Amino acid sequence: MTSLSKSLLARRDAVLGPNMSTFYQEPVHLVKGEGVWVWDHDGKKYLDCYNNVPHVGHCHPHVVKAMSDQAATLNTHTRYLHEGIVDYAEKLTATFDDPLNTALLCCTGSEANDVALRMAEAVTGKTGIIVTNHTYHGNTTAVSALSTTNPSKFGKSSHIRHVPAPDSYRPPEGDAGEYFAEQVKAKIAELEDSEHGFAALLIDPFFANEGFPDLPAGFLNATMKVVHDAGGILIADEVQPGFGRTGSHMWGHQYQGITPDVVTLGKPMGNGHPVAGVVTTAAIMHEFRTAFRYFNTFGGNPVSCATALAVLEVIEQEGLMQQAADVGAYAKGRLQELAEKHSVIGDVRGRGMFFGAELVTDRTTKAPATDYILRVIEELRNRGILLNKIGIHYNTLKIRPNLQFTRDDADLLIDTLDQVLSDVQP
Amino acid sequence: MTSLSKSLLARRDAVLGPNMSTFYQEPVHLVKGEGVWVWDHDGKKYLDCYNNVPHVGHCHPHVVKAMSDQAATLNTHTRYLHEGIVDYAEKLTATFDDPLNTALLCCTGSEANDVALRMAEAVTGKTGIIVTNHTYHGNTTAVSALSTTNPSKFGKSSHIRHVPAPDSYRPPEGDAGEYFAEQVKAKIAELEDSEHGFAALLIDPFFANEGFPDLPAGFLNATMKVVHDAGGILIADEVQPGFGRTGSHMWGHQYQGITPDVVTLGKPMGNGHPVAGVVTTAAIMHEFRTAFRYFNTFGGNPVSCATALAVLEVIEQEGLMQQAADVGAYAKGRLQELAEKHSVIGDVRGRGMFFGAELVTDRTTKAPATDYILRVIEELRNRGILLNKIGIHYNTLKIRPNLQFTRDDADLLIDTLDQVLSDVQP
Repeated sequence: MTSLSKSLLARRDAVLGPNMSTFYQEPVHLVKGEGVWVWDHDGKKYLDCYNNVPHVGHCHPHVVKAMSDQAATLNTHTRYLHEGIVDYAEKLTATFDDPLNTALLCCTGSEANDVALRMAEAVTGKTGIIVTNHTYHGNTTAVSALSTTNPSKFGKSSHIRHVPAPDSYRPPEGDAGEYFAEQVKAKIAELEDSEHGFAALLIDPFFANEGFPDLPAGFLNATMKVVHDAGGILIADEVQPGFGRTGSHMWGHQYQGITPDVVTLGKPMGNGHPVAGVVTTAAIMHEFRTAFRYFNTFGGNPVSCATALAVLEVIEQEGLMQQAADVGAYAKGRLQELAEKHSVIGDVRGRGMFFGAELVTDRTTKAPATDYILRVIEELRNRGILLNKIGIHYNTLKIRPNLQFTRDDADLLIDTLDQVLSDVQP
Repeated sequence: MTSLSKSLLARRDAVLGPNMSTFYQEPVHLVKGEGVWVWDHDGKKYLDCYNNVPHVGHCHPHVVKAMSDQAATLNTHTRYLHEGIVDYAEKLTATFDDPLNTALLCCTGSEANDVALRMAEAVTGKTGIIVTNHTYHGNTTAVSALSTTNPSKFGKSSHIRHVPAPDSYRPPEGDAGEYFAEQVKAKIAELEDSEHGFAALLIDPFFANEGFPDLPAGFLNATMKVVHDAGGILIADEVQPGFGRTGSHMWGHQYQGITPDVVTLGKPMGNGHPVAGVVTTAAIMHEFRTAFRYFNTFGGNPVSCATALAVLEVIEQEGLMQQAADVGAYAKGRLQELAEKHSVIGDVRGRGMFFGAELVTDRTTKAPATDYILRVIEELRNRGILLNKIGIHYNTLKIRPNLQFTRDDADLLIDTLDQVLSDVQP
């Protein structure tokens, strides 16, 4: 680490306090971004294969211009009428299947999930929530309590139940979808026997945090039925797979062939600008807005809406979903070739611009290469590639570049990974 | 309302759902803002005496440029090192008294208060919260439950206690500060007798939502002692009085002469950009970050920090605190003169760029002119002045312009109000 970065880190620790997590043993000190590239203060260039927030590319000029122009024209809250929020909400909801026709805009995916929980309560009159046992849905008090990966010192979550995260590499016997539905059903019964009752199942339909298992089409059908039969709702957290990342569909739940009751949106929505939202049916929105009073000062302001609209425009105009599908398939194919050479690669998974490989010390036992993957990630960083790990055992390479990622970028990534897997000894 | 606005309102209702509150019987349809002015789509110009979000003026060019330049350079989360968050947090905490030396950045005042509640829990191991009975602290599930003005269909707040809002126009017998402290003490005892225990008192030190009562200096001293003697902490919500609005001090708690344990910041911080924060002691930050894991993707990103830094620079460079003090005192003086002419003005209150008048139908009984004030606000809007009402009885004119408001603007406001109070018959 340079002395400049060291000094910055010391100042940061002093003014922001402890446990502000950074990536890598020595954090990367960034100063500039463009497209799929970021630069550190020393002029070193990195291929960003990880950051899903700058969804259509770091500092995309169309998005920056839309934001800057609106910021110079008007920014205000939604208690005045403004075209921006209406134009955006119409364009956004048009990408959803009926009856998901209404939207609520807020600032963060955490706020969106926090609202979704209240929608579930408004509709069902109950408060019990089911999530997987390896999930993360945000940082407010209410949604932070859901996350097994986000533990607090004080456990108070008698209204929360966890089901085992789907794991396509170590599958259960029988049909995976039926198995998951049975787990959910059992937890619904527990909640219905409690004072809380069952309100909602909240899942990322891509199960990104769980290690993005390869799930068969229709995996969630049985679960949807179980949830609805019990009078609950299904909330799909689209912060990871949303906005076309999977290539084949705009939303993760669409390739699963299901229509959730509530969908939450976050990170990629404004290419870095803090904008998020909840899309649901007119009926559920009505129930929520009757049961709870909700106003969000910054939510849906003209600048946020202009920025978010520009993101949708770029996805469409630049054909980025097609690019995500094409480049993602190409990169995944090259990863699969790499698996023939490196036995540490136990499984290759993913869709579109979210793919990766589970690293194991032994393909028979599938023992997670948890320490090894850390060294691989560090060495990739040394060679100018930024990515990370995820999954139930934290042994899966999480490769999630923004949608400007090309086949050339994929080649650079895979070639470098090939060398690193050869050079870094297990 | 024009046909364009009508059509927009219909589209809005369809795509955003019911109960999205708007101001006025016919909402104002805005297209442009500059300084203290906003324009509707019909070209009508309004003096904005209400919106505290564009704190240093609508579309302030220095703030817009800082935001735009950074957005075109780099925007990323805080798991990489970046100068922006450190520079900003240092400059921000320098405006606080010791030992308030550390900051956490997030996106909304609601998120800030949500974090503050967890800080209280981290420090005390308890969860009981005391607020006033006419307050609002935000929209997350946890903080929404605190607000008596934000009721939900489902009450579940056994850990929350309310004390009567201070009311300088209808004061209690004896010393107001001692009276408030006694109320807090009684509620602390109730909480300590419950399963929750007492964690924190959360107040706006300016009591804006309560109608910004004129409180004697040192009003909160006795309360601070009561809170600390019970092992709890005091959280000051500075979303309303913060960033120099009161003119005399950068923060509302400073003119009260107290140093809270935790301070939360929101609306004015980014002049409309969604940025917010929590400032506290190094010890409390340490307790929080040890007890809870907290990461906020958008919080403290380079664009938010560049924007927020520009706001601090404008306040300083343009002498806006001095302007808030000068113009606020002038406007309040003119309001007091108006009270000699219009008996409906029962009380004139405020500090700096947050002032107003409580309207009553009878100065002896102090009966709130609740219906009358609505007609006054509507007629002011017709004559190009935007403001609103607030307070325990919703009968206090809430005049809260941004800090670019001048004596000429104050004259226009007061002269128009004078005419409206003459023309609109009680």
